[in-house]
Order: sequence, then C-alpha cells, then structure tokens
Amino acid sequence: MRKDNLVGGQWCATSNESKIETPLGTFVDANSEQISQAVAAAVAASDRYASSLLTARQALLQYMVEELEKDKLEIVEAYQSESQLPEGRAMGEFGRTLAQIQQFIKLLETGEFLQASLTTNVEGTPDLRKIMHPLGPVVVFGASNFPLAFSTAGGDTVSALAAGCPVIVKAHPYHPETSRRVATAVQRAVLRTDFPPGIFSHLNGVSHTVGTALVNHPGTQAVGFTGSFKAGKALMNLAHNRPTPIPVFAEMGSVNPVVIFESKLLDKELPQALADSIALGCGQFCTNPGLIFLLGNKTDQTTFISSLSSALLDKEKAAMVHPNIEKHYLKSLKELEAKPLDLHRGVQTALGVISAQDFLKDLSLEEEVFGPYSLVVQCENLTELQTILTQIKGQLTLSIHAAAEDNPQVKTLLPYAVAKAGRVLFSGVPTGVAVNASMQHGGPYPASSDSRFTAVGDAAIMRWLRPICYQDCPEELLPPALQESNPLEITRTVNGKLITAK
Amino acid sequence: MRKDNLVGGQWCATSNESKIETPLGTFVDANSEQISQAVAAAVAASDRYASSLLTARQALLQYMVEELEKDKLEIVEAYQSESQLPEGRAMGEFGRTLAQIQQFIKLLETGEFLQASLTTNVEGTPDLRKIMHPLGPVVVFGASNFPLAFSTAGGDTVSALAAGCPVIVKAHPYHPETSRRVATAVQRAVLRTDFPPGIFSHLNGVSHTVGTALVNHPGTQAVGFTGSFKAGKALMNLAHNRPTPIPVFAEMGSVNPVVIFESKLLDKELPQALADSIALGCGQFCTNPGLIFLLGNKTDQTTFISSLSSALLDKEKAAMVHPNIEKHYLKSLKELEAKPLDLHRGVQTALGVISAQDFLKDLSLEEEVFGPYSLVVQCENLTELQTILTQIKGQLTLSIHAAAEDNPQVKTLLPYAVAKAGRVLFSGVPTGVAVNASMQHGGPYPASSDSRFTAVGDAAIMRWLRPICYQDCPEELLPPALQESNPLEITRTVNGKLITAK
Repeated sequence: MRKDNLVGGQWCATSNESKIETPLGTFVDANSEQISQAVAAAVAASDRYASSLLTARQALLQYMVEELEKDKLEIVEAYQSESQLPEGRAMGEFGRTLAQIQQFIKLLETGEFLQASLTTNVEGTPDLRKIMHPLGPVVVFGASNFPLAFSTAGGDTVSALAAGCPVIVKAHPYHPETSRRVATAVQRAVLRTDFPPGIFSHLNGVSHTVGTALVNHPGTQAVGFTGSFKAGKALMNLAHNRPTPIPVFAEMGSVNPVVIFESKLLDKELPQALADSIALGCGQFCTNPGLIFLLGNKTDQTTFISSLSSALLDKEKAAMVHPNIEKHYLKSLKELEAKPLDLHRGVQTALGVISAQDFLKDLSLEEEVFGPYSLVVQCENLTELQTILTQIKGQLTLSIHAAAEDNPQVKTLLPYAVAKAGRVLFSGVPTGVAVNASMQHGGPYPASSDSRFTAVGDAAIMRWLRPICYQDCPEELLPPALQESNPLEITRTVNGKLITAK
Repeated sequence: MRKDNLVGGQWCATSNESKIETPLGTFVDANSEQISQAVAAAVAASDRYASSLLTARQALLQYMVEELEKDKLEIVEAYQSESQLPEGRAMGEFGRTLAQIQQFIKLLETGEFLQASLTTNVEGTPDLRKIMHPLGPVVVFGASNFPLAFSTAGGDTVSALAAGCPVIVKAHPYHPETSRRVATAVQRAVLRTDFPPGIFSHLNGVSHTVGTALVNHPGTQAVGFTGSFKAGKALMNLAHNRPTPIPVFAEMGSVNPVVIFESKLLDKELPQALADSIALGCGQFCTNPGLIFLLGNKTDQTTFISSLSSALLDKEKAAMVHPNIEKHYLKSLKELEAKPLDLHRGVQTALGVISAQDFLKDLSLEEEVFGPYSLVVQCENLTELQTILTQIKGQLTLSIHAAAEDNPQVKTLLPYAVAKAGRVLFSGVPTGVAVNASMQHGGPYPASSDSRFTAVGDAAIMRWLRPICYQDCPEELLPPALQESNPLEITRTVNGKLITAK
C-alpha cells in the first residue's frame, strides 16, 4: 500500500474508502486516527517550536527553499500535469513560492513582528514585557487556484511556520501529487533541523470529512484558507461552533471592481490591459477584475466596451486549473444567458454589459464567475456609482482609472472605495500581488473573514500570533526577545519608545 | 417627557414600554427608530471622522477629559448612588478613566498605531502605501463592574474614538444615571470640535432588544464588550450570524489561576496579599484570583490555607455593584455547598478547598463565581498541576509564586501558563491592570473572544482598524499619513525600514 499521508514526520499507509484516482496515482484520504495523530504531533511540538530562536526558523525556511529547488523539475511536472497550466505559469508560481519563503526569512531578521514592548523601571508600575507568541497548530487548506503559492508550502504555511506555529496541510484534491511532492521536500527540510517532525504534517482529503475533523480537533488553534465563499464560510461556521472557537483566516475571493472615468474611456492601452488581466491565468486569480464600472458619455462608453470586448474575445482557449472548475464556469455563463444583460462570448472568455439601473435591480450579478469573465456596468453619473458601491459586497481590491483633472471627483469616490476594499489601485490592474511589507490582501467580508488581517505580505504572520505579557518575570525565565540585554538584537519598544534593530 | 437617549447629537424623548426606574429616575430604552438613527448618524459621520487629523482627535479626547473633570462631583455622586461602591473606588475609577483617555492622547502623538508602510521606488513593484484605517461605527456595551473605566467613556469607547471610529454606547442598566452624566460630558466635548455629532450616541437598553438591534444593524462594523461569558457569547453569535459578520471583542472574565510553590507556602505576606486581591472591589474585577493551586507538602499547604482563610474571612461586608450581582453571588455559594469541597464562609467572602483529584472529577468548579470567593486546589505534584492546566479554560492572567531556586521547575510550568493566559505574573496579584504599551488584557477563549487583541493598553486601538493599501495613488489623493513628505511627522516603515518619529 502506498504511503499517502505524512503524519508527524512519517509517511503512513492508509486504509480508507475515501480516495481519488488521478493519472498520477491514487490518493487515499487520511483516516480519523491519522488526523488525530497529526494534530497530536503538532500539539506536542508546539512549545518547543514556539520557543525556537528566529535564526533556527530562518534555517528551516532556507532549507525549504533548497529542498524545493532540488525537486523543482518533478514539482513543476506534476503541477503541469494536474493543472494543465502552461510551463510559464508553473515556473512563475514556483519562483513566487520561493520568493515568499525568502520574504519571511528576511522578516525574521529584525523581529519587528514580535512587537516586543518593555515597560520597565517605571515608578508605580510593575515590570511588564509583552511579546507576540505563536497560537499553536495551524491547519492550512491547499488552494485550488494556486497549487504552489497558496498551498502546501505557500503563504499560509510559511507565515505560520515563521510565526512559530506547527502546520497541518490539508492537500487540495485538484493537485494531490504536486502537493505530495512539495510536502516531501518540506519534510526533508524539517529533518535537517532539530525541530520535532510534528511541526509539519500533510494529509489528503478529497472528502470534507478530513477538513472538518481537522478544524474541529481541540488541538487546532487557527485555520488558513484560500478558496470559494461557500467553503470558507463553512469553515468559519465550524470554527465558530467549536466548544472553543478559533480564528479562521479565509480569503474568499472577490470581483475586484474597476472604475473607469470618462477621461479614460478612449485610452489606447486600457482595454487591452484589462482584457489581459481578465484572461490572466484563465481568470482564476482572486484579484481577477470581474466588475467594470464606466462613467461618462454613452458614445465613449460604447467605444470602450467594443474595444474591451474585441480584445477579450480574441483570447484563445486556455486550460483551467481543473475540469470541474471549467464545468462550473460554463454553467455560470449559461445561467447568465437568461439574465437581462448583453453577453458577448468568445471561445472561452466572455463579457457582460448591463446598465447601472438593471444591475441595481439584480445584485446577484455581482457574484463572482470564476473564470475569464467580466461584467461592464454602464453608469449615468458618479452618484449612481456611489449608490452601487454602498450596496455591493466587500472586495479585495478596487481600481480607479482617471486623469489628474478628475481628482476632485475621485476624492469624493475614495471613501466608497476604501469602505469596500482592502487595496485601492490607480491606473493599474488588480492582478499581480506584490509580496512585501506594504501589501494588503484581504478586505471587508466576504472578501475575507477578517479584514484586519492580510494573506499576503509581511503582516500575514500576524494572523498566527497573540500577545503575552510577562509581569515581574525573573530574567532567566523571560524569552530571549524580552531579556534586558536584548540578546537577539531585535526591534523593541522600551517605555513607549521604539528602538530599531541595527 | 424626559430626554433619555442621545441620538446623533440630540437628546431625544422616547416612548417605549421597556424602561427601568431607579431612585435617580426613569430610564426609557431607545426605541427601534432611535437605534436606526443613531447608527445612521454614525455611518454618516464615519468618513469625515476617519479622515480626521490625529491632532483633531487628540483635541476631542482632551475636551473629554476637561468636560468630565467639570462634572466630576455629579458623576461620582451618581456612581456611588447606583453602585453603592465607596467614594475611594469611585474617585479611583474616575481618575483611571481620565488616565486612559490621556494615554490615548499620547498614543496619537507618534502615529505608530497607523503602521504606515511605504514601498516606493522599488524596481518591478508598484508604489504601495499601507495604513491602518478605522473600521467604522463601533457599538460599545457598558460594563456592569466598571461604571466608568469600561463603560460610557471607558477603554472601548476611547480606543475606538482614537482609532477614528464613531461610537454608539449601550448604557448598562445597573448605572444608567452615571452613564447619562458621562454621556452629557462627552457630548459637550464633541460639540467643542468640528466633528459631526453622530460620532457619539448613547442609548439606554435594559432590554436585550436594544443591544441585539445595535449588533444586527448593517451599519455597525464592530462591537466592544466587557462582561459575562453568557452575554459575550450571545454577542459573538449575533455578530457571526449577521449577513455580514463583524468582529466582536468580548472580554468575558476569567478565574485567574494562582500557582504557589512550596517555597512560598509559609510566606508571611502572601496570604494577606491574596486575600486583599480576592476581596478587592468585592471580588468584582475580571482579574480577581478565583483559583489557587498549591504545590508541596501537605502540612505547609494546610498552614497556608489557614492563613489565607483567616485573612479572607476577616474581611467585612462590602457593597456589590448591584443587588442582582449580590443575589447571584449568594446563589452560587449555595450551590457550592452541595459540592465535595470544604467551604469556609465569612460574612461575605468565602474560600473553597479541594484536592486536585476531586477538582479534576468536576471541572465545573473552575467556573467563575463573581464575587469575593476563591477556590484552593491542593496538588500532589507539578505533573498533576500540569494536567489540570491543560484541561482548564483560557484565562486573562496566571500568577506564579516561587523562589529563585524553583526556576527550573517554573520553566517546565511556563508553557502551560502561556498556553492558557494572556498575562503571566510572578510574585504578584493579578488585580490592578496597568494601562500602557506593554499590557495585555485578553486571553485564550473564553477569557476573550479573540486572544490576538487586548482590551487594555495602547494596542486596544488595533481592534478597530484594518489595513488599506493604496497602489500608485496620486500624491494629492493620499491620506496625509502616507504622503511623500510625511507631513504628520509620524513613525513609518519605508521600504521595509522603520523610521521613527522625532
């Protein structure tokens, strides 16, 4: 029997009726015993891993980069086979995955994320020293649309490991072999450290049973998820209804509204840029622009729609991540045909056109159609657009295309944009999410479950930490980050004053 | 008709059958129209208040201090009348309330909490500028046990106003006149500014209807609460089940375990210090030590219990915040009499004693008994204590009393303490919560609804903020905190490097 599930450092054979067969093999779901063992191993590893030095975690992440590099060809091969995505995308996402790991290696340098704060030698106040402490075992759900960058060794896993939390990955059944190969590399990285192997487990789960059991397990302390609203909301409910509720960070996608002012309707490059963004990765990015608002005179709007439509409908057919996703996409388009909108269809891409008034009559049209589709909404004026923006759901991004002379009007629009989105872009397309300290990838519900956090960028680590305050703690019992001499040489706040690391 | 509810700057007369009559008057619940108007006024004020300069918010908070000072006598008089608490406590809490406001005035100085981060002029990356942005209208529930410091102008209200969020206070029905007087002072402070009066409303609600309607209102963006588990959990459920869930920060109390090593059992001062902490404020603080674990030989344990018991039972009867609380306290003690524990009772204070084995058999004994009661659990050894600590609920604090020679053992205990509490204290009592940058007041559920945040100290402001990233935003449209020249002179991160304000 093939050893399918990585449980606390051991690949285990599994007997379970729930499994999937793919051209690359059969993948048997973890059984309930293995789920328990994986969480128990993570719980057992928690304290030791939580108290590990940042340099030791940096080493682990560095080993992950090295081990993934070693298996690059095999991983990219499985990726292409399972997702049907082209080599360019596979290589790009592989590179992005390593770059994310490297970003967290760098983040661990200054220890700023620990938010160490000392209040010491202050008359009338005890000695107080606060630090961010890892929550404990984190369950990460692999994402269907990012077999690498938001799956097994993706942003959630890496930010949790950097935070000091053990991780149990629930592999996405659309790319089980890619996930298994990545897990093998991660396991080798773990074995090169002194950390208990329980800090990383990897379980198959084509059935919801596995994910449900993981989220419900009392040892699980937090959940990371990227995917559909339906699945994300189900996880939020599970987590809320536990005897001890736990935080779920679910990034549930968005239609990423784009607003185009009259001054940009005849822009030579915009239609092509937007069409490229809509069709990028076959429209399967969470930042895919799915809703486009036009302002200004009807003639220019018509010209814009015609340019966008021809640029978009010219796109050739591309593979979607999984046949099920494609089936669902085609079904959604079919349903749209019954709606009161103009539906332009290419071989695969599609563009809907509707008036703002009709859109307001049927807000279900704002729902994400996962794939290379976008809906153009023709607005009479800014007030109408503002009305719509107060009514639509929370979004990851909102983009504005306007000329400098529009700035006074843009200013009145901005509060509506900020109220609905986590990232507001100017003169750009929302796809392409930079991984750095200034990124926000998360927005008001239902774009994400908690808009106070981000899934991408340095601050993604904050999802997995909580503050602990030590009061009058003997020096030798303090974590090194809080000791008087600052042995880790990290950035700290001392008596309210920020003192940066060298 | 008396004007009972402050709705968007206007004190309004209310007709509603739901009301309470107290010696200080009749307080009529806000009706559904007033609830809607209050939230609508807060929503309408949100953008303008969110974009206000930090100095303008500082001025508002300063006016609050001044206006509260003016009404000090009337406020303290109502406080004493409604709570029956002594003048010393009333004055102390009044001072603490002003000190908290001043702490937030100071916090707004450096703007560090905005976490402004600029990634600019970096090859291959758009210009990204991130800042923490206020969530919008926050509903604050007045706390029964802190008529001032965690009610109308208390920590939740002040941190939300400092964050840039309008606040709607639901007054606690145990001290409606205190709350009304404070609200009057806050309203005058608001009127001294240019801010829309909708940033502060104050509604009576003896019935749950008012709180429920406020939390369910689509305009409400977050909730702050201090009180019982039952009420906090009900709010968490309401917030989770909204069409658009919102964050609730509920601080739901705790029994604040205290661990005493053998070396401290014969300490001359500890029994008195603990008894004082248990009886402080008649045991009605969220950090009241309600569970005491003893380690070491039985003889010394017996001596300690006898000293603690006599120190505690010597305490005179004191007023509780409200007759209902006293009734509930006495009922709980009655129920304890039927349990297999030694119950020592004074005129009002009480001490239970039980073996660790018996405690493990009935973990319901860990439930908070709100009042001057504590339970001593006699442990055979450290392992037994560790077993208990893995099984009890999350706590606000955990205190350890040990000598320097115990440090190796304390070290093995520490992970258990950190796993269960937000603040770990050494050689001290948990009551007395300093308000500064290093405080953590919040712990694993059910001590609070989200252990990643604090209800006390500078970081309390982070509960009401979410990041917004501006991408390639024209300079004149950027919030001042993100503009190139740093006109607000705040602490910012530029290309990953922290640059502190002068």
